[in-house]
Amino acid sequence: MTLRAAFYKQLAPEARASGISLTNWLIIGLVLLSFLFLALETEPTLTSQPGWRRTFNLFNLFVVSAFAVEFVTRLWVIGEDPQYRGLAGRIKYMSQFNSIADLLAFLPELIVMALGIGVPLIALRILRLFRLIKIARFVPAFDVFSAALSRAGSQLLTALALALMLVYLAAVLLYFIEGVGEGNEKFGSIPRAIWWSVATLTTVGYGDVYPETVLGRLAAGLIAMAGVGVVALPAGVFASAFSDELRERQQAATARRGSVDAPSAPPD
Amino acid sequence: MTLRAAFYKQLAPEARASGISLTNWLIIGLVLLSFLFLALETEPTLTSQPGWRRTFNLFNLFVVSAFAVEFVTRLWVIGEDPQYRGLAGRIKYMSQFNSIADLLAFLPELIVMALGIGVPLIALRILRLFRLIKIARFVPAFDVFSAALSRAGSQLLTALALALMLVYLAAVLLYFIEGVGEGNEKFGSIPRAIWWSVATLTTVGYGDVYPETVLGRLAAGLIAMAGVGVVALPAGVFASAFSDELRERQQAATARRGSVDAPSAPPD
Amino acid sequence: MTLRAAFYKQLAPEARASGISLTNWLIIGLVLLSFLFLALETEPTLTSQPGWRRTFNLFNLFVVSAFAVEFVTRLWVIGEDPQYRGLAGRIKYMSQFNSIADLLAFLPELIVMALGIGVPLIALRILRLFRLIKIARFVPAFDVFSAALSRAGSQLLTALALALMLVYLAAVLLYFIEGVGEGNEKFGSIPRAIWWSVATLTTVGYGDVYPETVLGRLAAGLIAMAGVGVVALPAGVFASAFSDELRERQQAATARRGSVDAPSAPPD
Amino acid sequence: MTLRAAFYKQLAPEARASGISLTNWLIIGLVLLSFLFLALETEPTLTSQPGWRRTFNLFNLFVVSAFAVEFVTRLWVIGEDPQYRGLAGRIKYMSQFNSIADLLAFLPELIVMALGIGVPLIALRILRLFRLIKIARFVPAFDVFSAALSRAGSQLLTALALALMLVYLAAVLLYFIEGVGEGNEKFGSIPRAIWWSVATLTTVGYGDVYPETVLGRLAAGLIAMAGVGVVALPAGVFASAFSDELRERQQAATARRGSVDAPSAPPD
Repeated sequence: MTLRAAFYKQLAPEARASGISLTNWLIIGLVLLSFLFLALETEPTLTSQPGWRRTFNLFNLFVVSAFAVEFVTRLWVIGEDPQYRGLAGRIKYMSQFNSIADLLAFLPELIVMALGIGVPLIALRILRLFRLIKIARFVPAFDVFSAALSRAGSQLLTALALALMLVYLAAVLLYFIEGVGEGNEKFGSIPRAIWWSVATLTTVGYGDVYPETVLGRLAAGLIAMAGVGVVALPAGVFASAFSDELRERQQAATARRGSVDAPSAPPD
Repeated sequence: MTLRAAFYKQLAPEARASGISLTNWLIIGLVLLSFLFLALETEPTLTSQPGWRRTFNLFNLFVVSAFAVEFVTRLWVIGEDPQYRGLAGRIKYMSQFNSIADLLAFLPELIVMALGIGVPLIALRILRLFRLIKIARFVPAFDVFSAALSRAGSQLLTALALALMLVYLAAVLLYFIEGVGEGNEKFGSIPRAIWWSVATLTTVGYGDVYPETVLGRLAAGLIAMAGVGVVALPAGVFASAFSDELRERQQAATARRGSVDAPSAPPD
Repeated sequence: MTLRAAFYKQLAPEARASGISLTNWLIIGLVLLSFLFLALETEPTLTSQPGWRRTFNLFNLFVVSAFAVEFVTRLWVIGEDPQYRGLAGRIKYMSQFNSIADLLAFLPELIVMALGIGVPLIALRILRLFRLIKIARFVPAFDVFSAALSRAGSQLLTALALALMLVYLAAVLLYFIEGVGEGNEKFGSIPRAIWWSVATLTTVGYGDVYPETVLGRLAAGLIAMAGVGVVALPAGVFASAFSDELRERQQAATARRGSVDAPSAPPD
Repeated sequence: MTLRAAFYKQLAPEARASGISLTNWLIIGLVLLSFLFLALETEPTLTSQPGWRRTFNLFNLFVVSAFAVEFVTRLWVIGEDPQYRGLAGRIKYMSQFNSIADLLAFLPELIVMALGIGVPLIALRILRLFRLIKIARFVPAFDVFSAALSRAGSQLLTALALALMLVYLAAVLLYFIEGVGEGNEKFGSIPRAIWWSVATLTTVGYGDVYPETVLGRLAAGLIAMAGVGVVALPAGVFASAFSDELRERQQAATARRGSVDAPSAPPD
């Protein structure tokens, strides 16, 4: 096996029947760590300390370099795959969604660092979220999510339509009871009442808005008792589609592995 | 095909085997947009600006005209259906619940506009909710909702009876523990304690009312641990009836479409 | 059919194959109304008005008289049942739990009224809750509830043990993080932290107590993400037992009715 | 049967086919009582009263002595089991996790008491949590918990990954909408926004942090409507694994008991 083939086996998820290679686990870990640092970097009590600032800069330099090296290596080893061979193949590979995300995950920040701009800009930080796409390739969870969405399909839409209608009607009712006239200013318009309605029917209940008149409380109590279930419907529909999807995949994976193992594969 | 037949095919949902015609999608969109504007129109920070006020007036004029045109057209094309032919048929059609809702969705507002009253009244706004019935005709969600209600039937009633009893008894208990004597005024009567009880057992928990004595917190904690599940029962019963109903309909629809497609229908 | 037999058919639930007689529906309605009035009577803004006070007194007089008449009638008609015939049978009937509850539902209040004490006492009001037992006889919901409890049995206990353990451990953890030392007084002891823990893990979240240190919020966030599911376990276990119990009963009732209808019963 | 054999039957759970012996029920009760006292001992309003302080000291003395006696007895009777016979067997038994937990449950506190230090230290109190392991031996709930965790396995991980990703992305979004610039300080960094995000998506909703701008409320409302279901996914996955695990165990236990009962066991 050539060096390039060995690297290919480590980097390309499609080179393995199942599981994630050590290198890709490291990349996942690095992306998750970079999300932790992205969060910490926004905390003013930390960025006001020179020690933390230096740590953030060093870590960012390290991550950007690592992803740059990873990108170049990936571009080199992809030649193992017949369809990406030669310059034409590399250009084809580069124009894929995943490759562009790989590039956006480090290039803008690298340019800013090279130009010597010290303070990272907000736009740069948002670009870091493209690193999520890097790991979405290895982790089936994101894939299951969208498959479950499309499986739930019309059921989910029906449940959502009912939930949204209830949220709207509850808001209209409470607006007329609580907000019209010289009433509770927090119910002073339908959009404001929708804020109450969402907070109540999802059972979040921040407590910044609640009815204060007797009639308003009566209506809110009845709406809450009856409505909490309706607004939870989409969640239930999605959860059941998600669990069905996962079960079927596991059964398919077990079946596939069985038939793959049968014609005994050579050890690697 | 005559012009009237073409319009009939666009407007009458019963003229199609399944799906929603483009015209009816536009009507649904217009109704949803009118609900968005109904909400925005109640927001004082918007209505105080002349620009927004003009937008609201123009939009209302447009919607009312559109629904008036739709109503007249619908009245004309319904003649395609044998049972609504002629003047007698039109009167029969006009006396249906759906047609009256169609009328109420624009006529009162049209009259007010014609008489030149600038500010729309609250009663007028409530009448706009009749537009919901316009779209309920096309969207099966509302129909599924009531079917699920009647399917859950006695199970739902039993679960609701238990939930309401628990809410009442929890309120009585906390009233005696917290409210009697010179206690917490927010538990000063059973109706007030019911407000706490509903907010707690639905897990909304606004935080405007909560027990403050040791005994009250002990009782509230035990009630919350045990009671949250009971009050969520009706929601669970309804959710399962809703999902059963939807699944059966989809199976029936698939079966029906299969048998309709079989005797190959002429292309339209 | 004698008059006594006719009254028996109206009053005794065991005299009917299924359903509830008109008289018993009226009794259920009266009990529910008396619970509404019990709630309203505790509201100081109502009891301070002479009009409402008079209404309350008249209503209580009416309810107590009605239940007294019902009790005496029930005692008379029960003679239709062979096992309660004669004086010995009546004494046997009177010593049953249901009959004692029937008695407690009106007798103490009747005595107080006869002795001319105007203001109803709190103890009297609590006795009114015995009226719940009156209607529990007719409504299967309460019966299903206890059957579901015993069916869930050890599963429910296991889930409850886990939930309680989690609530306790979460409270201990947050007490050590937030409350020890000169910290947040609301976490100043384990019992106080349990109040937070119950409010959080049931997702009620009143907002009267929440962690304020960084470490406390980190711990609370992780506990909430992981623990909400565990504390909801007993609710889920009970809900599933409840719905299984109800389904089986309905199937049994359908089967029973089928076999009863078969040997065509004489019309009544 | 020798005295040691009789004690062994009472103390060792493996000596019984099923159920818990009276002695072990007493130990469970004592552990639970010691947890109640551990909680009460941290409450300053109680520890400031000499009467309560004396009660706490007496109770602790009693519990520590009882567990010391239990430990010594257990060490004696374990000789009934062939693999723990003699001194070597006792050393083998002592080096088990359960035995060390048994020791930690009383020894440190006993030493402190013997040395005459009156005030119990916080570290001592934490050691009392080892008593949980004492009862975990008898109660299958803890065992079912971990079995359910490993059964849910990759499904649970997938659901958790989605939930955590949603919590993070919701926090990033609200940070950019509400916190950047001279905005709401409670959204002033991503970690702070995560605190809001966890409280909202678990539906706890303390109400200490919530968006205040129109755009923030719009985003928060949409996130809450859509996200509550996703964050509840791990709970649902775990609940279903837990209930499957329990059902299978009960079936296995019923089957096992059947085959044990068959070759009629001698009465004890």
